[in-house]
Amino acid sequence: MKAEIIAVGTELLMGETQDTNSSWIGSRLPEVGLELHWVTIVGDNIDELTDILARAWERSDVVLTMGGLGPTMDDLTRDGIAGMLKETITTDPGLKAWLEDSFARRNMNPMPQQNLRQAGIIPSASSIHNSLGTAPSWWIERDGKILATMPGPPRELTNMWSTEIAPRLKERIPGNVIMSRMFKTIGLSEAAVDEMVGELYQMPGMDFGVYAKPDGIYVRAIAKAQTEAEVLSTLQAAETKIRAALDEYIWGTDEDLPAVVVGQLLRERGYKLAVLESCTGGMLGGAITDIEGSSDYFVGGAITYSSDLKVQAGVPAATIDDFGAVSEETAIAMAEAARRTYGTECGIGVTGVAGPDDQGDIKAGTVFIGVSHPGGTSVKEHRFPSRRPLVRNRAVTAALLQLASALRSH
Amino acid sequence: MKAEIIAVGTELLMGETQDTNSSWIGSRLPEVGLELHWVTIVGDNIDELTDILARAWERSDVVLTMGGLGPTMDDLTRDGIAGMLKETITTDPGLKAWLEDSFARRNMNPMPQQNLRQAGIIPSASSIHNSLGTAPSWWIERDGKILATMPGPPRELTNMWSTEIAPRLKERIPGNVIMSRMFKTIGLSEAAVDEMVGELYQMPGMDFGVYAKPDGIYVRAIAKAQTEAEVLSTLQAAETKIRAALDEYIWGTDEDLPAVVVGQLLRERGYKLAVLESCTGGMLGGAITDIEGSSDYFVGGAITYSSDLKVQAGVPAATIDDFGAVSEETAIAMAEAARRTYGTECGIGVTGVAGPDDQGDIKAGTVFIGVSHPGGTSVKEHRFPSRRPLVRNRAVTAALLQLASALRSH
Repeated sequence: MKAEIIAVGTELLMGETQDTNSSWIGSRLPEVGLELHWVTIVGDNIDELTDILARAWERSDVVLTMGGLGPTMDDLTRDGIAGMLKETITTDPGLKAWLEDSFARRNMNPMPQQNLRQAGIIPSASSIHNSLGTAPSWWIERDGKILATMPGPPRELTNMWSTEIAPRLKERIPGNVIMSRMFKTIGLSEAAVDEMVGELYQMPGMDFGVYAKPDGIYVRAIAKAQTEAEVLSTLQAAETKIRAALDEYIWGTDEDLPAVVVGQLLRERGYKLAVLESCTGGMLGGAITDIEGSSDYFVGGAITYSSDLKVQAGVPAATIDDFGAVSEETAIAMAEAARRTYGTECGIGVTGVAGPDDQGDIKAGTVFIGVSHPGGTSVKEHRFPSRRPLVRNRAVTAALLQLASALRSH
Repeated sequence: MKAEIIAVGTELLMGETQDTNSSWIGSRLPEVGLELHWVTIVGDNIDELTDILARAWERSDVVLTMGGLGPTMDDLTRDGIAGMLKETITTDPGLKAWLEDSFARRNMNPMPQQNLRQAGIIPSASSIHNSLGTAPSWWIERDGKILATMPGPPRELTNMWSTEIAPRLKERIPGNVIMSRMFKTIGLSEAAVDEMVGELYQMPGMDFGVYAKPDGIYVRAIAKAQTEAEVLSTLQAAETKIRAALDEYIWGTDEDLPAVVVGQLLRERGYKLAVLESCTGGMLGGAITDIEGSSDYFVGGAITYSSDLKVQAGVPAATIDDFGAVSEETAIAMAEAARRTYGTECGIGVTGVAGPDDQGDIKAGTVFIGVSHPGGTSVKEHRFPSRRPLVRNRAVTAALLQLASALRSH
């Protein structure tokens, strides 16, 4: 079935706010049996909004709007829908009471008069409360079509989607249970992964996709069937085959992040981690501490951007003198110094040339990553495309996945 | 004049690639005298693409397409435009020669047969070479309208826009020279900034906007006039008034980033910087070293996620015992320890509770930032909204701007 997204807001057209919602919803639509055909961003202009709503209502089975549900006069999504469906907005007493209650609970009493706009509804819509904000959603089923409004702030939108909109859509889209699973690999090229899963492409009821991402190659398995039991068993069969083909390269699934995977492995083993970072300048520590509770296994480390600081943090001066600050030997010495200096079981050392300029003989994009743990120390050389932000981001991901792989095989 | 963007590609609808191009172009259209009314994302589907092209051609003065210019059979932008305008694509000998030459220069000889598709053109289009890729742009003027195609990869698109498309548009959109300048402030609320620049709103030929951003409140001044000299003088007059009202709060303009501003100030003074980071876990160092050439003024520092590491990096144990790891006193001690331990003129110390949970009595979102330089040491307490990524990002920005402000007034 065809779905369409309409994102409302002049700030999206001015480039002041990036529309990240459409892509987030877009990646989730296959799981409710919908195929996204159009995304339109339109400003706070009632004629243009009503026009695109009418067109969407005509050509799509499910229309999802985002934004424009606030209390001010330029929040026009409700008016646009009412106009398009030729229905009249009236104040819903239940919604009004819920809104007043929301404001009272936040000690904002009385509710500003203009928020009453958010209690408006049309006859063919039912309302869905928003547990994270004051903008309720409308859910409309008419003429064999579905239209749902969602609030614009990403936290409110993702919550509304997951708890309210997606379950309703799954219920109403018949004969189409769809589930997907993402397998995240590292260490193989896109072509190699494609070849290894190629024979699965004939599995009935399954679709596969292979994608190159900054943290490796992903394989997405999408199963479709009439019942949930059927879809689960198809997906399980696909997973067994994918794991047989790619097991040693898979570092995570679905929402897994490298820093989360490393954190779990460290926690399971009761190990602590310290880092010594040169070209990543603190980004590796930043990625590790993005994760809540990372203080359970991460103690910190040093940003050794200058050679002096490397020595101060425990790297033998002779290693740097003999092999250079950007070398296998220095990366190993950094990983081992991290463990020794900070008294941890695991250490990571990252040294490289982020660029854009080469450093003497060493090409921009060259990064050495050393990983040390109770089972030993290993080092890898990487040659990333020589764009500075890319080099640094890839180096962080590679360092985390190198430690994860070392811990797993230990 | 009305502009419209059409972004082409099924990967954009699947949520596999985020469309960042539209927002980038959207923020630049006012400067060429265009107002963006619609952005549509459409898949690699010839009927749907042709349909939206026809609609855009009808309702907008300038249509910009992005993507779908590759060599494969699902790169359909050229075919869609030809179909919409009822013109026929033929191979352009000049384009063909240019493409073959591009491949030869990359030692890819002969050119793959399918790339010949990229040498196709219609009678009403002229071609624009792409210096960063193999997809040339089409530039079409017909029926009083303009249509330009741009390649999808962001590097190629931004280059094509700045060097080719924007200059052509500026030339052709008459009587409308538009220039804008962004002033970035910190330390005032959105309402306070709005009030202070409020009296400027009546300046003839000027538009103003006030925006809340993670790194402070921005004021955008947009000047419109018939000639470039006129627009420059209007903008200059506006800048003088804005600086008179906000000078001490302005930390940068236009594309300035906090880390760039700090880097310039350090470089001018010949100072070096070291950091001690707790709740930001390395992100501050990461932000500083995002900037090319930062090794000229940044030596590194320590990620002191645990209290032991703070002491190891030179923070007196007594300070932590007496006042706690998250306190004004510890932030000051961290900034001073950074200077002392790493032998630099400047030091920053960041300690706080990133959350989501409170830490004893200290609420999540509380961050203390100490800044030390040859003119003295200062500390600030911040209470950010208690969402972990937001707390950490705000803390990085606040730390950089606090050092910039201290250096400037020294």
